[in-house]
Amino acid sequence: MRTLIKNIDILTMDENNTQYKKGCILIEDDRIAFVGHETELKKVAEKGTKYDRVEDGKGKLALPGFVNTHTHIAMTLFRGYANDLPLMEWLSRKIWPMEDKLVEEDIYWLSLLAIAEMIRGGVTTFADMYMFMEETALAVQHSGVRGVLARGLQGPDANSQKRLEENKRLWENWHGRADGRIQVMVGPHAIYTCDPSYLVKAMELAGELGVGIHIHLSETRQEVDNCIKELGKTPVRHLYELGLLDGHVLAAHCVHLSSDDMDILKEKDVKVAHCPSSNLKLGSGIAPVQDMIDKGITVSLGTDGAASNNNLSIMKEMALAALISKGVREEPTLIPATSALEMATVNGAKALGLDGDIGSLSPGNKADIILLDVNGPHYYPQAHWESHLVYSGYTSDVYSVWVNGKKLMEDRKLFTVDLDKVYSEVNKIYKRILGE
Amino acid sequence: MRTLIKNIDILTMDENNTQYKKGCILIEDDRIAFVGHETELKKVAEKGTKYDRVEDGKGKLALPGFVNTHTHIAMTLFRGYANDLPLMEWLSRKIWPMEDKLVEEDIYWLSLLAIAEMIRGGVTTFADMYMFMEETALAVQHSGVRGVLARGLQGPDANSQKRLEENKRLWENWHGRADGRIQVMVGPHAIYTCDPSYLVKAMELAGELGVGIHIHLSETRQEVDNCIKELGKTPVRHLYELGLLDGHVLAAHCVHLSSDDMDILKEKDVKVAHCPSSNLKLGSGIAPVQDMIDKGITVSLGTDGAASNNNLSIMKEMALAALISKGVREEPTLIPATSALEMATVNGAKALGLDGDIGSLSPGNKADIILLDVNGPHYYPQAHWESHLVYSGYTSDVYSVWVNGKKLMEDRKLFTVDLDKVYSEVNKIYKRILGE
Repeated sequence: MRTLIKNIDILTMDENNTQYKKGCILIEDDRIAFVGHETELKKVAEKGTKYDRVEDGKGKLALPGFVNTHTHIAMTLFRGYANDLPLMEWLSRKIWPMEDKLVEEDIYWLSLLAIAEMIRGGVTTFADMYMFMEETALAVQHSGVRGVLARGLQGPDANSQKRLEENKRLWENWHGRADGRIQVMVGPHAIYTCDPSYLVKAMELAGELGVGIHIHLSETRQEVDNCIKELGKTPVRHLYELGLLDGHVLAAHCVHLSSDDMDILKEKDVKVAHCPSSNLKLGSGIAPVQDMIDKGITVSLGTDGAASNNNLSIMKEMALAALISKGVREEPTLIPATSALEMATVNGAKALGLDGDIGSLSPGNKADIILLDVNGPHYYPQAHWESHLVYSGYTSDVYSVWVNGKKLMEDRKLFTVDLDKVYSEVNKIYKRILGE
Repeated sequence: MRTLIKNIDILTMDENNTQYKKGCILIEDDRIAFVGHETELKKVAEKGTKYDRVEDGKGKLALPGFVNTHTHIAMTLFRGYANDLPLMEWLSRKIWPMEDKLVEEDIYWLSLLAIAEMIRGGVTTFADMYMFMEETALAVQHSGVRGVLARGLQGPDANSQKRLEENKRLWENWHGRADGRIQVMVGPHAIYTCDPSYLVKAMELAGELGVGIHIHLSETRQEVDNCIKELGKTPVRHLYELGLLDGHVLAAHCVHLSSDDMDILKEKDVKVAHCPSSNLKLGSGIAPVQDMIDKGITVSLGTDGAASNNNLSIMKEMALAALISKGVREEPTLIPATSALEMATVNGAKALGLDGDIGSLSPGNKADIILLDVNGPHYYPQAHWESHLVYSGYTSDVYSVWVNGKKLMEDRKLFTVDLDKVYSEVNKIYKRILGE
């Protein structure tokens, strides 16, 4: 199957930040075969110029799909539920008691709702940590999106060994499945929900499976203060000394970091999922994004769950990431638009260890492509695509979405998710659990 | 002309924050005749239950139109131009030299572009300050939107008297015109562009015309520091002592305020246009919004011009206003969703002295109404409308827009602005002035 998208402006987000005016993209099966000008395409096209499908990209802008590196997608159920509370109170008083009422199949429908929202916002890959993750895997398989999934682990308690086993079973049943769209990580929740012995068990499991670790880290001042009080060191140093940072680690939040912490993150090449909406909304604070970038740390973007955001738009996170540092530091040159776009795409791929496959529109990469409709008044004058996207773009400008060479949306219509069915099932779950 | 919108959820934003599930709104000519449940409508409808038009609001949410209380709409030309510079450098090196090249008719087309964008984002009223304002008035007249217009005034210099005369002529030609949709204010730009004698002249003109003053105030640390150094007092106290705050004053930005400044703003009932995107993007800083609200100051929302935002979405400002204070102060209970919605609607009306006419869906008010499509996945579960709108809503969810009882948009199609013509004219202006 060969599809040519022609006559389209392109931000490749490759190493050289190559951009094309009226270029073209050739998709062959699940891969990108060519990106550039059509005149060049004719020279290199080994298989000739016959295409199964040709699309006109006029008025559209092509980008690699956005990567959401930290979320809990099934928490769509709690969107708008219990706003305006601090993290620990919100978790312990509101979220955890309700989560106990969730059953396995709920997670399938709540995941599909989130995936529908993400596809409509141009998110083609997400990293998730939650429970009943095989249901989320099923939703990934059915919807055609790409997912990096971890079982959220807390312990020790009566169920902590079972959770480790579930994470292992998730790997056995799903790692590399769905045409390679599903990857599995190990998901120790945080240092304040996992004691050192349990963190070590999670680390050992990751080693045994040969996969990375996805963890919340230094999210709130309270987490850091308590850790220092109890252990005499910061959460980052705590993990460092446990050896947990020796492998591939995706650390979500990283709001409250010392200079020493940042040195450790750099030394161990820990990937950061910066979640500005969630950090603001829960009052967790402002992450030192520019400092992390200056140190050479890979910073990507996550939405966190819909309960603390309250949506799953990486375009929104991109805008916030670019704006907040400027305002807080009173320095408008920080985090320019290009950096924010990198966070949302190529850094997201690096954060998940998928940078050979996704994150930029480069020949050989998987065909995870989004087209944005850039003909709204908020894109005029039609210059400066990067800053228009970051500072002026709407999430809903995403017009069509390909993952793995398969089209999942066109003209905002979803091909793989039956929204009416999802809404109906989600409404039932909402009534049962939140009783309204 | 009587139009009934039925079967619709409504956030009235009235004093009691009255909300309806499956209510209805009756529009009679340019006014709202009824808001409530249809069973009640039948009891009170003096003119019976015959309607010229009945609309089904299923899947929609009705709100008063958003009010954008500070912008320079014709600056759409500079969207994305010269990002990442501090305010004074950006103005003096980039914006002002280009503005000298603008001719009168440019402002008409650039204003129409902005108005199209604002209507599509649910903004039904805006307060503007710029040059060639009669062209903006013409664009307001033609497009059907509501505008509160001021000639931007700087002085003294060779043209400063002429600018005052232009502001006066704007009032003579346009105040109360276009079915009352146009109001005029006097627009002294700021304390750093107007000396005390010129500020007094602007103040006297406002007194003579019986209108309010629209001014930039305490936007940057530099403005405040210089004022203290030169005059021994803050910009707010400077204006206070000049008597400029004695009438109706709309003060944009108010980022760097002392406690004394806030006492003055409260004492003089100065209305604040909080512009979070612009303040962040230009590195101006973080306004003490919660402190102002706690003092009882009326805080509304402005986008500022597209050059420093880079769009004209009040929904984006609403989200930022709600999120930033929480994050910066590490206190998630600050600025709840309801407060942010008030800023975007009823406080906007108060800021412009139009609270008898717009800002809430109340019988007797002008029919400035927006309907949002709330059937996207980012609105599920369909509860908590206020927090969904503020934290999860997209600007593009605005489905239809009425101003003064006239429908300006439906299904995102504009009825009064020919977008293709506007794009074509804006492209010509862009090529001529920015030479690309």
